[in-house]
Amino acid sequence: MSLDALRAALPAHVLVTDPIALDVARADKSGHRALAAPIAIVEAEAVEHVQAALRWASEHRVPVVPRAAGTGLAGGAIAGEGELVVSVDRMRRLLDVSLVDQSCVVEPGIRNAELNELLAAHGLWWPPDPASRAISTVGGNIATNAGGLLCAKYGVTREWVLALDVVLADGSLISTGHRTVKGVTGLDLTALMIGSEGTLGIVVGATLKLRPLVEGGIWTVGAFFDDEAIAAAACTAVTAARIRPAIMELVGRDAVSMLAAYTGQPMEGAFVLVQTDDLGAAATSEAVAGILAAHGGRVERTDDAARSDVLVQVRRQVHFALESFGTVLVEDVSVPRSRLADMFRACEEASARHGVRLATTAHAGDGNLHPTFVFDGTEPSDEIWACANEVFEAAIAMGGTLTGEHGVGILKRRWLVDELGERQLELQRAVRAAFDPLGILNPGKAV
Amino acid sequence: MSLDALRAALPAHVLVTDPIALDVARADKSGHRALAAPIAIVEAEAVEHVQAALRWASEHRVPVVPRAAGTGLAGGAIAGEGELVVSVDRMRRLLDVSLVDQSCVVEPGIRNAELNELLAAHGLWWPPDPASRAISTVGGNIATNAGGLLCAKYGVTREWVLALDVVLADGSLISTGHRTVKGVTGLDLTALMIGSEGTLGIVVGATLKLRPLVEGGIWTVGAFFDDEAIAAAACTAVTAARIRPAIMELVGRDAVSMLAAYTGQPMEGAFVLVQTDDLGAAATSEAVAGILAAHGGRVERTDDAARSDVLVQVRRQVHFALESFGTVLVEDVSVPRSRLADMFRACEEASARHGVRLATTAHAGDGNLHPTFVFDGTEPSDEIWACANEVFEAAIAMGGTLTGEHGVGILKRRWLVDELGERQLELQRAVRAAFDPLGILNPGKAV
Ligand SMILES: Cc1cc2nc3c(=O)[nH]c(=O)nc-3n(C[C@H](O)[C@H](O)[C@H](O)COP(=O)(O)OP(=O)(O)OC[C@H]3O[C@@H](n4cnc5c(N)ncnc54)[C@H](O)[C@@H]3O)c2cc1C
Ligand SMILES: Cc1cc2nc3c(=O)[nH]c(=O)nc-3n(C[C@H](O)[C@H](O)[C@H](O)COP(=O)(O)OP(=O)(O)OC[C@H]3O[C@@H](n4cnc5c(N)ncnc54)[C@H](O)[C@@H]3O)c2cc1C
Repeated sequence: MSLDALRAALPAHVLVTDPIALDVARADKSGHRALAAPIAIVEAEAVEHVQAALRWASEHRVPVVPRAAGTGLAGGAIAGEGELVVSVDRMRRLLDVSLVDQSCVVEPGIRNAELNELLAAHGLWWPPDPASRAISTVGGNIATNAGGLLCAKYGVTREWVLALDVVLADGSLISTGHRTVKGVTGLDLTALMIGSEGTLGIVVGATLKLRPLVEGGIWTVGAFFDDEAIAAAACTAVTAARIRPAIMELVGRDAVSMLAAYTGQPMEGAFVLVQTDDLGAAATSEAVAGILAAHGGRVERTDDAARSDVLVQVRRQVHFALESFGTVLVEDVSVPRSRLADMFRACEEASARHGVRLATTAHAGDGNLHPTFVFDGTEPSDEIWACANEVFEAAIAMGGTLTGEHGVGILKRRWLVDELGERQLELQRAVRAAFDPLGILNPGKAV
Repeated sequence: MSLDALRAALPAHVLVTDPIALDVARADKSGHRALAAPIAIVEAEAVEHVQAALRWASEHRVPVVPRAAGTGLAGGAIAGEGELVVSVDRMRRLLDVSLVDQSCVVEPGIRNAELNELLAAHGLWWPPDPASRAISTVGGNIATNAGGLLCAKYGVTREWVLALDVVLADGSLISTGHRTVKGVTGLDLTALMIGSEGTLGIVVGATLKLRPLVEGGIWTVGAFFDDEAIAAAACTAVTAARIRPAIMELVGRDAVSMLAAYTGQPMEGAFVLVQTDDLGAAATSEAVAGILAAHGGRVERTDDAARSDVLVQVRRQVHFALESFGTVLVEDVSVPRSRLADMFRACEEASARHGVRLATTAHAGDGNLHPTFVFDGTEPSDEIWACANEVFEAAIAMGGTLTGEHGVGILKRRWLVDELGERQLELQRAVRAAFDPLGILNPGKAV
């Protein structure tokens, strides 16, 4: 494939063919890697660069892999032989903030945490909070509908996007949605773009819905339980009491014991972390502590920032603790909140049956679990895949889904039909074809 | 068109051909009416009835108009010659409520207010609150992405739907979305269905996201201002102070004077109504009252239920007051909150230019205005359409949209391309065709 025509259409420094950069684009954070490097990377600095790249790709039927920071966990940004990467990583400007409209306009490559630092100066906040917020982009968050610890209370990315500028596969530019809070003109293509993992178009601009920073103090409650079933029941009781904590996390016993070994601090049992915010934070945290204690939890409650951080670190350090024991493969199932305990048990039983090491954490507030395989070497064994298969099937059987927040990418395609059914899968493909009739956008990913 | 095959596929009482019922289906609440009656109405009582109707319609290429309570203001449910109405009005059951999952499962025909009464017994709430909530259905709210007074703070229908069961044009049944709070498997067809006005499929079941009833008191603030520009500036100042009222409404001077005549109570000026809720309600209402007074408002603040109701009725009675002066045509533009005063001015200027009577109210909290034409006779004059056209163009020029909450239906199709652009309109049509290749679902409506 000759790049001459593309080169002619772009500034020289925008078309990258440096082998080291191409090698980076073979992987994301999923642990997977393309067998060979892509043709080139368009490091777009302006909307027109993205348009030029897609026009060229359409003309030459070259598959395109949209890419931002490459922190994805589903393999969606992985590019291989014969593919062109179109990256928006350099398009990082915050273009406008309106206090009155409580909205802002950004380029897609701005980092989530960087944006929120800029917004904090205006007393505003964009709530989606993936754990990767310091390193992942707003455009990537949109393309994967990212969520984080706060999303049970404050919602996922979908709820915080008003409008998008999108370059379609043929290079044309459309503006979907509205800068207004309400608007129902035509089909909601903005919502459809969110979570579409680069298969419908490339997001080159976004108008985000913001909210004022939350007022009031933050209280933290931590509690250790004898096992996950009791811990999950305690979390369920919190929700059933109609309490809306900002954060409610559950760390399974295996994960806690690896963490104890990693940090050298004695810890035992299943851990529940709850944070409350807003005006009623203190009273709410007291109610939470009462419920956790009533379920046999060994409870600590604090509003001291330093002590609070110690409790929060129990949750945040888990990933690093697990990595210190081997290679990790993070899964991402979601079940109705009422099935949390059942899902923990299903993970435990499946891992015992297959003799594989599986440590599980959960966003208990919204029923999203991260069963995490820990293994030696670089590639998951067949036993791990067999165990993962059982975990996915258990989640679907409980009325859940096989990806709560990481997306389908290349990793979950095998299970898609189980969840969607043949007819819906066919429909999803038809919708995709309506956007991209030549099938050049992220082929082989997602639907 | 012979109905024999359809009759054979349905219980006798489900296929309605009574002329009075057919006549009702010629209209909704838009003030428009089809020239002739539809062929028949399938008053579905079960999913299979909807499937049988669509299978028959596909086979015979008969256009289908989905219908629920018929309260729509955009003409989306109007059925005419040669069309089959498929109504879900009789499918009204609440099938399941889960306190722990904070979700419920409903049939589409359940009334919004009826559902919320049932949920209140569990301490739960489905927030979408169109003014029509006593008479409109949850399925209709979903098909139009309905919003109401509370939506600036609590969001529109889109934010409160987890999963849908949808019968497609060919009669097949798909389940989109998840019963879980999070889930990103494949394209988000649930979001795409919301606001699609019966053009993509018929919603036959929904899993709704709920939240606990809001705690704490409710405070009400009412204030009269010399004109809309000052009143709008005061509302803008409330938002800019990062206050999130539950309700913030603005009633223009013309509407207030018609209301005064209608009720016989002396009132003058532009009226602003604000309600605050939740734990900080009292303090927040005090801050609001201070801001409104600082802008010259004649302010009253109360938490007395009876007095509060008097203030709220100023807003709620407007529609009836206007109707006492003639036939009304309610428009529905949305602009960025910061352009509220400009949009009021644009309405005033356009109505003066065309010599038509136009009274405007606004959901100031989210920049959604209802410019309402009041006229004699049954059909709007050419001058009214010319004025409406200017109003729509002004809204679009301000970065707004021509329908904030009522939908496109048949009324707004003329202006759709102005807002979406040719390329996006083409794409919207391609997406619609992916769902409904024969084009039998609500032809001539929406996109
Ligand atoms: C340590 C760590 C913690 C994480 N924690 C979370 C978490 O808590 N919650 C969560 O949801 N995820 C989490 N992730 C996953 C990842 O960070 C998110 O999916 C993130 O949204 C990806 O953003 P990115 O900019 O890195 O996108 P990339 O990885 O570059 O791309 C992700 C996908 O989006 C597409 N894409 C990217 N940009 C665009 C665009 N502008 N237009 C169209 N398509 C585009 C790509 O093709 C790809 O399919 C975590 C990852 C790591 C490494
Ligand atoms: C007094 C009054 C006040 C109103 N206030 C508001 C308001 O504050 N906010 C607001 O948003 N709207 C308001 N409306 C408009 C209207 O009530 C809403 O649009 C409502 O959501 C329509 O619900 P319905 O059950 O009457 O649907 P219908 O009018 O029967 O149908 C509306 C549209 O949805 C489609 N549809 C209906 N059911 C289904 C289904 N199950 N599957 C697929 N498509 C379907 C129809 O084809 C049609 O296009 C008001 C109307 C009135 C009369």
